[in-house]
Amino acid sequence: MRDINQYSITEAVKDSFKTQDGSRLKVLLEAFIKHLHDYTRETNLTHEEWMGVLMFLYDCGKISTPERHEFILLSDVLGWSALVDMINTRGGATEGSNLGPFYLDDAPVKALGAHIAPGRPGAVVLVQGQVRDTLGNPLPGAIVDTWQADAAGTYPIQEQASGQDKYDLRAKLTADAEGKYWYTTVLPKPYTVPYDGPVGRLLRAGNRHSWRAAHLHYIVRAAGMRSITTELFFENTDYIDNDAVFGVRRSLIGKITPVKKSDSLPVDLEQEPDAKIAFDFVLAPEG
Amino acid sequence: MRDINQYSITEAVKDSFKTQDGSRLKVLLEAFIKHLHDYTRETNLTHEEWMGVLMFLYDCGKISTPERHEFILLSDVLGWSALVDMINTRGGATEGSNLGPFYLDDAPVKALGAHIAPGRPGAVVLVQGQVRDTLGNPLPGAIVDTWQADAAGTYPIQEQASGQDKYDLRAKLTADAEGKYWYTTVLPKPYTVPYDGPVGRLLRAGNRHSWRAAHLHYIVRAAGMRSITTELFFENTDYIDNDAVFGVRRSLIGKITPVKKSDSLPVDLEQEPDAKIAFDFVLAPEG
Repeated sequence: MRDINQYSITEAVKDSFKTQDGSRLKVLLEAFIKHLHDYTRETNLTHEEWMGVLMFLYDCGKISTPERHEFILLSDVLGWSALVDMINTRGGATEGSNLGPFYLDDAPVKALGAHIAPGRPGAVVLVQGQVRDTLGNPLPGAIVDTWQADAAGTYPIQEQASGQDKYDLRAKLTADAEGKYWYTTVLPKPYTVPYDGPVGRLLRAGNRHSWRAAHLHYIVRAAGMRSITTELFFENTDYIDNDAVFGVRRSLIGKITPVKKSDSLPVDLEQEPDAKIAFDFVLAPEG
Repeated sequence: MRDINQYSITEAVKDSFKTQDGSRLKVLLEAFIKHLHDYTRETNLTHEEWMGVLMFLYDCGKISTPERHEFILLSDVLGWSALVDMINTRGGATEGSNLGPFYLDDAPVKALGAHIAPGRPGAVVLVQGQVRDTLGNPLPGAIVDTWQADAAGTYPIQEQASGQDKYDLRAKLTADAEGKYWYTTVLPKPYTVPYDGPVGRLLRAGNRHSWRAAHLHYIVRAAGMRSITTELFFENTDYIDNDAVFGVRRSLIGKITPVKKSDSLPVDLEQEPDAKIAFDFVLAPEG
């Protein structure tokens, strides 16, 4: 290996990994090594630039905590998260969209009809829909796990220092016998992704804004079905066409309409809604 | 942008960065986005694999300190550091090799002839040579900045908990009027790169050993010349043909020979050597 050069080194590095032929690890490692090396040769990367990348990663690591994943944010602003979501969306199923950095897997379980934003300012909106499989069959007992920002564009988890409860504006709901779910909340506002770390520096260097279109987050699960992680956006709202993390898809944009006196609303709502939006989730079978 | 798909997203992400045409930032970002997205499409990366990569980076960040750069180590074992060294070696100059994670820029200044390993076990070796430019002119006053492991394969900076001084086995020497340098030290042994972190997990997953061929580290600087960062290896030593970080080049392998009574040694050596090795450094002009 003492005679490797800038071309032959790529095979030498691949060969140094003794991974099983045909294994996923081998595929992932070899493709990564090839792209990393090709990138470096194509750009004639200098030592200063190389060290700049390494220190950028170092800084991302230093600012990260279990509740602030700078690497997920980096993936988001590079469209990597969105691309992985797109690749992994199954035909006929609801399109995937960003998980984002604020998911907690132990959101409080709430009943259908719950108001998940008690005491919070903002227009109250009824969110309702059905969870189905790709053949149109309802999925009773599906879990609709939701989290969101408030009417100021802030997640409670970001405001724990000022006494907010990180579990606020989150809920796990269980769909009824017809796969239906409904709850009320306040309308979230657009917000900026965290701008005070290395990813913020990258966005500023690239003259990019850091605003996300307003959205509600969802993970929807049902027995035997492939879970989906997605977001619901709202027609005619800010940043819907230039979301900072490339999360918007046409199929994920819902329409908010005012509640009229003539509307028949679910009987068990904890709070009377000002507006409503309907959104169905479609899950594909596992495997 | 609501109609982007897994192919068009790459241009959308490039376009989101408003970087100056022809700027280096634009070149580096656009090539990176293309390779990242191509990699993801080619491998059909799953969400679990994507999150595995992000958590791997997170773990690298968590274990890193100013004195332990897991990202540099990652770059090393992927041959990225070596590739950057190769690309940036100027014709006629000494080939570059790994900086590694243990460099300190404030090594103690020592006089020519110094023994930089006082009181340490191991064979004492005289290291000597000349610093020249690519036309063969000596470079008087060139700075030879060296650091190394001890005869057990350990850097003092790794053993601070047991009372070692991180500045041991380091020196900044100034070449004489003929560009010559000389000093004595103990022969370093092979060592494993840090194996207790995420990069160690990667090496184990790939059934790779983590041994480096024994070496001395150098950064050599001279006014008006491009600095070089390199390593000196020793003929017929372990791992010389499968160094874990791809640092070995044929031109960087020196030969250790026993000191004979008939040898004429520098008069100002602090310690009598058992063996000697000669290695010249050649620097190219800046720019």
